[in-house]
Amino acid sequence: MSYLEIPGGVTAAQGFLAGSVYCGIKASNADRPDIALIHSAHESVAAATFTTNRVKAAPVRVSMMHLRGGDVRAIVANAGNANACTGLVGIENAKRMAEAAGKALGIKARQVMVCSTGRIGVQLPIEKIEASIGALPAALTADGSNRAAQAIMTSDTFAKEIAVECEIDGKKVRIGGLAKGAGMIDPNMATMLSFITTDAVIDKKQLQCALSVSVEQSFNRITVDGDMSTNDTVIMLANGAAGNKPLRHGKPAFKIFQRALDHVTRQLARMIVEDGEGVTKFVEVHVNGAATLSDARRAAEAVANSTLTKCAWFGGDPNWGRIMDALGYSGAKLREEVIDIFYDGTIAVRGGMPSKTPFAKLQEIVAQKRFTITIDLHLGKADYTVFTTDLSTDYVRLNMGE
Amino acid sequence: MSYLEIPGGVTAAQGFLAGSVYCGIKASNADRPDIALIHSAHESVAAATFTTNRVKAAPVRVSMMHLRGGDVRAIVANAGNANACTGLVGIENAKRMAEAAGKALGIKARQVMVCSTGRIGVQLPIEKIEASIGALPAALTADGSNRAAQAIMTSDTFAKEIAVECEIDGKKVRIGGLAKGAGMIDPNMATMLSFITTDAVIDKKQLQCALSVSVEQSFNRITVDGDMSTNDTVIMLANGAAGNKPLRHGKPAFKIFQRALDHVTRQLARMIVEDGEGVTKFVEVHVNGAATLSDARRAAEAVANSTLTKCAWFGGDPNWGRIMDALGYSGAKLREEVIDIFYDGTIAVRGGMPSKTPFAKLQEIVAQKRFTITIDLHLGKADYTVFTTDLSTDYVRLNMGE
Repeated sequence: MSYLEIPGGVTAAQGFLAGSVYCGIKASNADRPDIALIHSAHESVAAATFTTNRVKAAPVRVSMMHLRGGDVRAIVANAGNANACTGLVGIENAKRMAEAAGKALGIKARQVMVCSTGRIGVQLPIEKIEASIGALPAALTADGSNRAAQAIMTSDTFAKEIAVECEIDGKKVRIGGLAKGAGMIDPNMATMLSFITTDAVIDKKQLQCALSVSVEQSFNRITVDGDMSTNDTVIMLANGAAGNKPLRHGKPAFKIFQRALDHVTRQLARMIVEDGEGVTKFVEVHVNGAATLSDARRAAEAVANSTLTKCAWFGGDPNWGRIMDALGYSGAKLREEVIDIFYDGTIAVRGGMPSKTPFAKLQEIVAQKRFTITIDLHLGKADYTVFTTDLSTDYVRLNMGE
Repeated sequence: MSYLEIPGGVTAAQGFLAGSVYCGIKASNADRPDIALIHSAHESVAAATFTTNRVKAAPVRVSMMHLRGGDVRAIVANAGNANACTGLVGIENAKRMAEAAGKALGIKARQVMVCSTGRIGVQLPIEKIEASIGALPAALTADGSNRAAQAIMTSDTFAKEIAVECEIDGKKVRIGGLAKGAGMIDPNMATMLSFITTDAVIDKKQLQCALSVSVEQSFNRITVDGDMSTNDTVIMLANGAAGNKPLRHGKPAFKIFQRALDHVTRQLARMIVEDGEGVTKFVEVHVNGAATLSDARRAAEAVANSTLTKCAWFGGDPNWGRIMDALGYSGAKLREEVIDIFYDGTIAVRGGMPSKTPFAKLQEIVAQKRFTITIDLHLGKADYTVFTTDLSTDYVRLNMGE
């Protein structure tokens, strides 16, 4: 472990400020801030990953353009309205939101990344946003991470933040982040947003490389209900305030940075899963011994998204038959008669058939709030892990609308 | 309409007998028959479709062999035990079950198709089955369809049967069937079984052609939870008792037969969906205007299996945003800005954005027990339909195990 957890979240890295204001997007939450801003006092570069959903919200489209444009200095995000399925007016409003934030901060609109989460198909109350955003710079502080994290919460039950510090070239380098999870807002979409900052010296291309790798092993490994939002976005800013030698892929220093970043993204991803709607259990699904990475992934995702398997977990029922079934329809190459399945390391299925482990022992494991399912396909060397949850009656209740 | 619904289910066609006996597979249901038998008094040929799950139950493997073997005269099926994940002993037991039925009927074991539904990973109590099966021939009657349908029910709330009669070459040809649906038994698997009989004169190859086409537009179009069982099986027997000229693909008589068969399979498929666990709503999802059939299918299945969309339906919430989202991640080719979505013909989304239809009007539609979602992608001519349900708190409760 070459990094250390520290407080401060997205403002832990030098030169980053964050804050929030209330602008009244959600009439029902009149006293709760609903716009967050993260700003780098120094020049900074950005990397990002966006939803692969073909229906992309307007702010996603605008942020994709701004990312291509060059350096980025700020991220502005609102809760209460997703600005998705809003056509050309929606695009215009997302641009106006970036412009308003840029004007308030004295930077260009294209230096601002813009995000939205909330109700789909309703136009953004852009005048309200423009009227309130001028107050944002004054609200920015060097310990404002928590306020920013709170402002973009929807049905999240806690603000999700983490920061780490590592040493590179004798300099202290910090990486910090915040996230909002898969919560429903009004009767609408779940969206995952995460904003990460670092004071490392790293160019835009190298930063994108590090972030893409890190997202792949964290945010892309989590599933609550298998539905992918129109607004999912991860943005990372790097401002070079730490003064290390520029990080380059393949060098030892880059590895230290990558490991620290991976910890940040993985912890945020875990928090999102644990705070999923109606979640009572956190389950890691490991698939080992697959013929290819694609097989490992298909197998793990089929198990992690199986409605029947997740209902069984909710009820504390080991039910490995449903896991075998999900493996069977996953599309992964497999041979039923060599599959082993373990619950927290205790064998439940050996060679595709029930092991001698007493049912009561498996019940004990599944009764826990956290456990691990390990599936060995015994066909090759590829492995894949997905973090998932049970499916509860509360999940349905929370998602059945008004 | 060139066919007529008639009573009689799987025994409506001439020369077919059905019945059931109790053999004690499930200790908890001591007075309920748990083995069903369908028998053709004349020589008959069989066609079948089996689960595409790579984890296949032992009876599926044995029936696949028997189907290849030649003519088939009987179907034996038990509830209470799936004989899945049971290894070589399971295969041996499925063979013994076919042998016992064949012996009792005076036919060869390979002339018997064998099916199981119920708990996974437990060996079949084959001695009990062998001890009871001798009583089956005496229990067979020409009006025994309902008793056979009852015997293979698990959490089904009603027996599913239908029969039709059509005229071919001046002869009355009958097709009848029964089915069991996606119900849980003990804390285990959902399995779909359907057995269909006809007195038409049709050879094995032509029968398989008709059945495969029919299954594709019926049983393959239904989804309750997206999980596919290890035991799913559809078997059809034809004994030629009607005396028509042999049916051949491409001829007008074949079309009459196909239409009648399609009605049988589609009605049974609907009954299965409507009797799904915890189901409160039956929803038809039509996708039109897709670029390819594969796109149409992906789009329809993504919507029909979206957990969030199904929860919204349960709550009577129109929530077309979740439909747009599911379309976006379906993998289907689409252009957001030309998508139209209709609820029972009333437009909800026009060009990817909310229509002017009042929300209350859409709420009224989704409050119904049955409604249709039509999605026009406006990219081509391919279309696809899926029959699905909502996802209720009762579904979770029924599937959370003991």
